[in-house]
Amino acid sequence: MQDLYLVKIGGGVINQSELLDQFLRDFGEIPQKKILVHGGGRLATDLAEQLKIPVQMIHGRRITDREMLKIVVMVYGGYVNKTIVASLQGHGCNAIGLTGADANIIPAHKRIVKDIDYGFVGDFDRINRQPLLAMLGNDLTPVLAPLTHDSQGNMLNTNADTIAASVARELTDEYRVHLMLCFEKPGVLMNPEDNASVIAKLTESMYRELKASGEISSGMIPKLDTGFAARRAGVAEVRICHAQALGEAVSGDPAGTSLEIERESS
Amino acid sequence: MQDLYLVKIGGGVINQSELLDQFLRDFGEIPQKKILVHGGGRLATDLAEQLKIPVQMIHGRRITDREMLKIVVMVYGGYVNKTIVASLQGHGCNAIGLTGADANIIPAHKRIVKDIDYGFVGDFDRINRQPLLAMLGNDLTPVLAPLTHDSQGNMLNTNADTIAASVARELTDEYRVHLMLCFEKPGVLMNPEDNASVIAKLTESMYRELKASGEISSGMIPKLDTGFAARRAGVAEVRICHAQALGEAVSGDPAGTSLEIERESS
Repeated sequence: MQDLYLVKIGGGVINQSELLDQFLRDFGEIPQKKILVHGGGRLATDLAEQLKIPVQMIHGRRITDREMLKIVVMVYGGYVNKTIVASLQGHGCNAIGLTGADANIIPAHKRIVKDIDYGFVGDFDRINRQPLLAMLGNDLTPVLAPLTHDSQGNMLNTNADTIAASVARELTDEYRVHLMLCFEKPGVLMNPEDNASVIAKLTESMYRELKASGEISSGMIPKLDTGFAARRAGVAEVRICHAQALGEAVSGDPAGTSLEIERESS
Repeated sequence: MQDLYLVKIGGGVINQSELLDQFLRDFGEIPQKKILVHGGGRLATDLAEQLKIPVQMIHGRRITDREMLKIVVMVYGGYVNKTIVASLQGHGCNAIGLTGADANIIPAHKRIVKDIDYGFVGDFDRINRQPLLAMLGNDLTPVLAPLTHDSQGNMLNTNADTIAASVARELTDEYRVHLMLCFEKPGVLMNPEDNASVIAKLTESMYRELKASGEISSGMIPKLDTGFAARRAGVAEVRICHAQALGEAVSGDPAGTSLEIERESS
């Protein structure tokens, strides 16, 4: 079975142009089939501030009202996505930038309001893998922005980690999928203050213990839950690592944190 | 030979949401293969003004400095392109939004400075029709933003009429191509003040006379030059019409202005 690298790059890296450029160079040089999913992060917040659009956050999550949706579509779907595509093309990688609306890759629905109305945030229904497989077959490298659509004419804002993990799971019938979650930290840390405390191999039972004892930072929990779920669903490798370690990680050098599932739980 | 409708929608229509919505509905209902090319127009200027970025125009053409390029990529490649794609998806048309950087469809170079430095404006080298043909073959409808790239990592701003006409010319080996240039006027007018003065059929010799006598408005000249060149290069039909006349024009009812080439000049 052919390898496919599904790489997610976090918003924190996108703001650091040198780091981003090196990362894109390394990504472009991956010889196997590959897909990039990017976050957006601070650029949208910066633009909203410049335009004096109030940014609402609840529990660290952005509320996407109609004005903020417009910003997010411009920044994630436009500026960030196309800057990455142009840069990859410059490095000889034939990238194609997409949102979940393009070729109807990710139909979604507006999140149902329970306690909090997150606004135009999309929880997705499914991934249409056919267009992605066709592009990979034509030696194109899809670059996905964290946006979906509601099939009724509206774009929706969707979490990039969730998109990356779900696309990874969807392609396991055709490819041996490696999900690489790259960000601005060296991996999952035992001590969030100490970059040398990377856990090289994190098993589910270790994770349960660390979560119960409060030793895993709360921001990492959704990423890890999604990552372990992907492993259980047949993704061959899930690795959380620094953006600048992508090259090593792909070439098989241990870098960052690998999520391991126990045989008996699979 | 199968028909292909290559439709260009002008920036003036994009600012009018009801007209745009009706146009996208009509476009989505074209039963034949189709491609949409959109302008951007005033939205980029509006955003630049809100952000207090000075907009420089020379002879009616925008100068694209680095700040303006960022705006144009956000607005044309992001907001306008994805809003159109989501809307078409809502009307059941499987659209895929693209710039010239995506799948390397339109490699270009920064315009060479003669008298005026237009900044990050791209004059393009060629159209790579292979990805477009693959998408059309997969029943996708490409939606092209007026942006290209320089193959060295930079996006470039490019005229939408030129892109539309060039893509039309590039696909004449595979399709019987109809180039429909839709905007907010009913066609080419004998008298720019009188919307009833539409020229139904404009021949090249008529055009030469009208141009010599100054009876064609200067803004129409590049559009008509490009349109006649496309006809001469094998595009089966070139029509300039109102956005709301697209449905009629496609169904064969005469609407707007058809550009006709004389047998002897072909």
